[in-house]
Amino acid sequence: MSHFYDETSIERVEPGRWSTRLSRHWNIGENSNGGYALSPVLRAVQELASQPDPVTVTTHFFRPSKGDLDGEVRAEVLRAGRTLTSASGSLSQEGKSRLTVLAAFGDLGSATVSAHDITSPPPDLPPPDECLIRSGMEQGVDLPIMERTDVRIRPEHAGAGTHHLAELEGWIRFADGTEPTAMALPFFADAFPPSVFSLMGRVGWVPTVELTVHVRRRPAPGWLCARFECDDLHDGRLIESGRLWDSSGDLVAQSRQIGLLLAG
Amino acid sequence: MSHFYDETSIERVEPGRWSTRLSRHWNIGENSNGGYALSPVLRAVQELASQPDPVTVTTHFFRPSKGDLDGEVRAEVLRAGRTLTSASGSLSQEGKSRLTVLAAFGDLGSATVSAHDITSPPPDLPPPDECLIRSGMEQGVDLPIMERTDVRIRPEHAGAGTHHLAELEGWIRFADGTEPTAMALPFFADAFPPSVFSLMGRVGWVPTVELTVHVRRRPAPGWLCARFECDDLHDGRLIESGRLWDSSGDLVAQSRQIGLLLAG
Repeated sequence: MSHFYDETSIERVEPGRWSTRLSRHWNIGENSNGGYALSPVLRAVQELASQPDPVTVTTHFFRPSKGDLDGEVRAEVLRAGRTLTSASGSLSQEGKSRLTVLAAFGDLGSATVSAHDITSPPPDLPPPDECLIRSGMEQGVDLPIMERTDVRIRPEHAGAGTHHLAELEGWIRFADGTEPTAMALPFFADAFPPSVFSLMGRVGWVPTVELTVHVRRRPAPGWLCARFECDDLHDGRLIESGRLWDSSGDLVAQSRQIGLLLAG
Repeated sequence: MSHFYDETSIERVEPGRWSTRLSRHWNIGENSNGGYALSPVLRAVQELASQPDPVTVTTHFFRPSKGDLDGEVRAEVLRAGRTLTSASGSLSQEGKSRLTVLAAFGDLGSATVSAHDITSPPPDLPPPDECLIRSGMEQGVDLPIMERTDVRIRPEHAGAGTHHLAELEGWIRFADGTEPTAMALPFFADAFPPSVFSLMGRVGWVPTVELTVHVRRRPAPGWLCARFECDDLHDGRLIESGRLWDSSGDLVAQSRQIGLLLAG
């Protein structure tokens, strides 16, 4: 049993079209978490692709997706290559387009290590049980998503608006013991509080306009370690960059998003 | 007269379809530069959007585009909003899809400065005339694009494979004196040598799989200052992040791409 895989499942209606149903257990406040809402679309793309792993996943979020509501998924291959397949997809609910995805799938299972490799080590974090459990109240919204994910924040980054930088480090895993996979990394890359939280405090819902996740490796079992930072906030739009490492210390995903700061 | 605007021009054939013709003067070796080849598609999206400026532009490159060859551009609006319009588009040549674009347009002309802004200053670079003109021979490919752009590389970063980091800083402008615009920033973000060049030397053509450019401000006239770095190269795929600042020292664009290292 895996809540993530059960609650992102899709059923094919006809070629290129699937039905799904989002669960409210992945909500941030009243809305589905973006990384969760894009995951059924990613599964449709995976069904169409000849390769198993998402290598790059870009999503534009048009309006919030809703939990405990049916959804319609569409996907089509744009280019099928020997090593990479590019496809687009979308999620609609109640006849309204919620998000669109442009993704490329490849095979991350046959990676070779080269002397030319350039690697970034994970941050030196206190272990998960010395970090703080993500609290919805401090961010200013309810977090049903905490029923499904276990998020621990580095203590120095956990006080709302008390840190001198917009950065956030911590740990994440599924609450039900499901081990992380390449398909789940776009979700994990969008499941932390906004990194401006540590600098600015209660920023509430930070709508993502666009999110791109590059999956770099299939993750080893165990906790994922994460670092997010915002070095660019201007005119109410912010750029946040993130990285995820697996329990072996290998970099497994990089992410970047542009989001809207409604408060402040 | 502006070579960039003339040589990325489009002509509407019917709703949603345009003709264009790429010029070989923007080639990297035998192929069109990717940031140049996506620009006619961006102009089609701009025609459809209610807002003038590209805020986020993601491109998947399927196969190289070719100079001195006609192209067909398609574009459609995915979501028209009050502040942002998302649209997809594509470029085909000789009946083959070369690239696809997912972009959101907004208005960067009414930016307000807030006390909450987070800014990144430009690197402390020697002036352009103390930097080195980009040399095609050192990268291992012919660079017709140098007829159209003036690229100056920081001397410490200009020796092939002599630097201890995969980083590259320099200056860029159009060779014909055309001032930079928001619409040209996706091109400028893809017009430098690969940042692994400074570390690894002659890497040749580094095909981009996916490139996302976030345009943050309309640039002031004058040189653009740039910094690119690669902190993640594994299994022949690299992540490169870039930033561009205008002559006022304001950050005007951020970019990230995943590319293929064919050599090494």
